[in-house]
Amino acid sequence: MTEHSLWGFSRALHRAINDRQPDELETLIDEDVDWAIYGPVDMFTFLGARRGKAAVLDVCRQIAETVRVHRFERESIMLSENSAASMMRYSLTALGSNRPISLRVAHFAQFKSGRLYSLRVLVDTFDLIEQALGSPIHLPKMA
Amino acid sequence: MTEHSLWGFSRALHRAINDRQPDELETLIDEDVDWAIYGPVDMFTFLGARRGKAAVLDVCRQIAETVRVHRFERESIMLSENSAASMMRYSLTALGSNRPISLRVAHFAQFKSGRLYSLRVLVDTFDLIEQALGSPIHLPKMA
Repeated sequence: MTEHSLWGFSRALHRAINDRQPDELETLIDEDVDWAIYGPVDMFTFLGARRGKAAVLDVCRQIAETVRVHRFERESIMLSENSAASMMRYSLTALGSNRPISLRVAHFAQFKSGRLYSLRVLVDTFDLIEQALGSPIHLPKMA
Repeated sequence: MTEHSLWGFSRALHRAINDRQPDELETLIDEDVDWAIYGPVDMFTFLGARRGKAAVLDVCRQIAETVRVHRFERESIMLSENSAASMMRYSLTALGSNRPISLRVAHFAQFKSGRLYSLRVLVDTFDLIEQALGSPIHLPKMA
């Protein structure tokens, strides 16, 4: 049984982020990849939509300059032949401030010939922002 | 081919929210359901973790009192026999303020004997909060 494309991609992504070694990741991304991490692009310029391998590798380089991944746990996962979705909990350090960030993330990925072809990532953005700022934002009770 | 449990659950959930008719939903939730919508529980008390059918029906009643669903679009979906995951875009109205809210949501659901047994929902919480407040929160550029 062949290993699912998600596993190799995940290892290569974490290697690109933590070790700043993007060579393997580069071989696992389709030239025409469609990529989006939804979130506040004014705060973190590596968020948002990108198209094509070069733009995505640039985003991964920016992420590598911003955070270090300590640990991640897949809380839910679904796999089919060329697709994968998971809900994950990441433990990160923000490199600028040295602040720990614990973050829940969901991704939906599609692969073509073993390469990432489409990625959509949803982040618990308010949780991210409060931790990145290092102080709580007061919210009124609304319901 | 039998319809996937997700479809009936989804119809019953929207009927419970928009028409405040929870009877069908009640038959589609396991007594011991494990439920979580991650987000700012101080702002919206229907967010957070719940255990058991009664607690979940109470959350759905609170959601029905808070929002009306106009439209939703599944942007990504994965189905297996007893599981489903999707990334969705919802168009809502906040009933208190009459404000439109457009929101991206990811869910991972598990079913047992056709009933919802586990649900994990991730929301683009910052986007939700800004729209619920009706004004932007200033964020510094951090990366």
